Amino acid sequence: MSYFRKHLELIAGYQPGEQPQDGQFIKLNTNENPYPPSPLVIETLMENLNKHRLSWYPSPLCDELRERVSAVYGYPPDWILVGNGSDELLSIIFRAFLGKDDRVSYPYPTYTLYRVLALLQEANYEEIPFEKEYSLPKKILTSQAQLKVVCNPNSPTGTFLSTPVIDNLLKSSSCPIVVDEAYVDFARENALSLIKEYPHLIVLRTLSKSYSLAGIRVGFLIAHPEMIRGLLKVKDSYNVSWFSQKAATAALQDHHYMMNNVEKIKRTRREFSQAMSRLGYSVLPSEANFVMVQRPGDNLESEYLYLKKNHILVRYFSEWPDSLRISIGTDSNMQLLIQVLSAMLKDGKK
Amino acid sequence: MSYFRKHLELIAGYQPGEQPQDGQFIKLNTNENPYPPSPLVIETLMENLNKHRLSWYPSPLCDELRERVSAVYGYPPDWILVGNGSDELLSIIFRAFLGKDDRVSYPYPTYTLYRVLALLQEANYEEIPFEKEYSLPKKILTSQAQLKVVCNPNSPTGTFLSTPVIDNLLKSSSCPIVVDEAYVDFARENALSLIKEYPHLIVLRTLSKSYSLAGIRVGFLIAHPEMIRGLLKVKDSYNVSWFSQKAATAALQDHHYMMNNVEKIKRTRREFSQAMSRLGYSVLPSEANFVMVQRPGDNLESEYLYLKKNHILVRYFSEWPDSLRISIGTDSNMQLLIQVLSAMLKDGKK
Repeated sequence: MSYFRKHLELIAGYQPGEQPQDGQFIKLNTNENPYPPSPLVIETLMENLNKHRLSWYPSPLCDELRERVSAVYGYPPDWILVGNGSDELLSIIFRAFLGKDDRVSYPYPTYTLYRVLALLQEANYEEIPFEKEYSLPKKILTSQAQLKVVCNPNSPTGTFLSTPVIDNLLKSSSCPIVVDEAYVDFARENALSLIKEYPHLIVLRTLSKSYSLAGIRVGFLIAHPEMIRGLLKVKDSYNVSWFSQKAATAALQDHHYMMNNVEKIKRTRREFSQAMSRLGYSVLPSEANFVMVQRPGDNLESEYLYLKKNHILVRYFSEWPDSLRISIGTDSNMQLLIQVLSAMLKDGKK
Repeated sequence: MSYFRKHLELIAGYQPGEQPQDGQFIKLNTNENPYPPSPLVIETLMENLNKHRLSWYPSPLCDELRERVSAVYGYPPDWILVGNGSDELLSIIFRAFLGKDDRVSYPYPTYTLYRVLALLQEANYEEIPFEKEYSLPKKILTSQAQLKVVCNPNSPTGTFLSTPVIDNLLKSSSCPIVVDEAYVDFARENALSLIKEYPHLIVLRTLSKSYSLAGIRVGFLIAHPEMIRGLLKVKDSYNVSWFSQKAATAALQDHHYMMNNVEKIKRTRREFSQAMSRLGYSVLPSEANFVMVQRPGDNLESEYLYLKKNHILVRYFSEWPDSLRISIGTDSNMQLLIQVLSAMLKDGKK
């Protein structure tokens, strides 16, 4: 006998990438930033740790941090909601819009958490395959859904939809639309400018990727105040710790430092993509801090395992066996990966 | 037109206590600890801040912290689940066990978040009034529910149910039963010893009260491994930041320091309760770090407002207007409150 709701028995739960904490691996499997966060983060914490009363609850709405997000991204604080990572915000969104037998639709393949969150709500998910060259599937424009999600740049493909394409989706749909911009700092443009015009648009951001702060668990979303007010009803009162609010506020003060790292990563991405092409892999055009490499019809699990044996972790999804998602590390990280992979291919260990 | 699920329109959301961040108030409204956390917490963070890679995701299951909880509380790590505060764990529990039209039952009055979480699931909540002297209502033993919750010691009353009473509830019900022990370190005993025997028992703890760490957002629960495995499906992958895991681990290493503060608070609680009785209030017997004072039939909002004007924050719930919930601060905090209140009563400002 089980105590749990029936539908939970059928759900596997989301499987996060491996997170060895022992520092024995070059981690290129969960799209972490190879560069540390702005030195301002540690400095600010060092300065404030002794002054602050950790015995007090933190600001429920992250007031200081929202002010800072507002200053950087140009929307007032009541258009901003801060979460315990953008995963928590996604969970809040799915709970707010999807009940039993409702439907969320999104282009596929994408972040598999969307499917898990739909299942947890007993909702249906419509996974609409991307069209040619990973363009937005037309079917998503007309899909009858209570929620639509577009991950842009998309994970695991790294491909990007331009702002006019997003604008067109917003025009053709009246349900809430989430543009999950976790990786957008590595892309050519973003959807921020559209928020004002569309009250059903929610733009989602995280400090885990471009800001090098996956360890602090901070994400935020920007949307019209009516949208924020509804989502707040679902949020836990004190969802972001004092540390995380302080660290995120400091990081946003050093926006320039982050943009510098982004430029380095984009350069490495270009060189790595070329090198992988030379090794015979198809490399999808990426605007994120990772690339998806493929050998259509083949199974790349052996590459994944060989790299792991050599202390390099990349992401292999059994759902897409002919592909690997490889995060962009430092130049030397990527050169080592290329070396190891070349050796494997040369020895015919494949 | 609204984008949200219909039932959300009818929900107000949980209203947390006021959290002024400017240090201008003596805060006796949200049961924070007046003493700082163990010095080990700050020392550990100072030592590790520069060594750790904040750019990495934290341990999804809080491995090091679970080892520490295991060492202190005597259950193996796979019997332990760590949350972003015990509020997050409650939210996970309600999502795991309650669907539309299911029912949760609990003694009333209690923590009003239970009601909000039930409403978010479109579930029914059965609020069963405590019996004489806040004893467990018999009706909860036979209530047909998918989940039962007992806050013990209870908030806002501070009253306590002994272990045999909890044991009896566990024997008479087959649904999952949460014993929310947020305040239990201030009580005479706890339900830990019952966990082994009852696979439907979930014991909930937090570091926000006795450990003086409301700012870090860490709670944990202990239950049988099958229970943990089901709840994990609902949990966000990376729900506790690196800081919070590190700080909580350090605090648990200094269990003795916490118990010392608890003893001080219990002493202050006894003296404060006597002083409030002398002022003519009924004071419920408390085993928590707060007391509920009452003047049956009266409305204590004027006391709340007068104290606030004098920079002392206590908790007034419009749902229970003849009562105030007052957290136990330092001796001098409580003496000042008594002084201010005496002056108000003497001047007949009431």
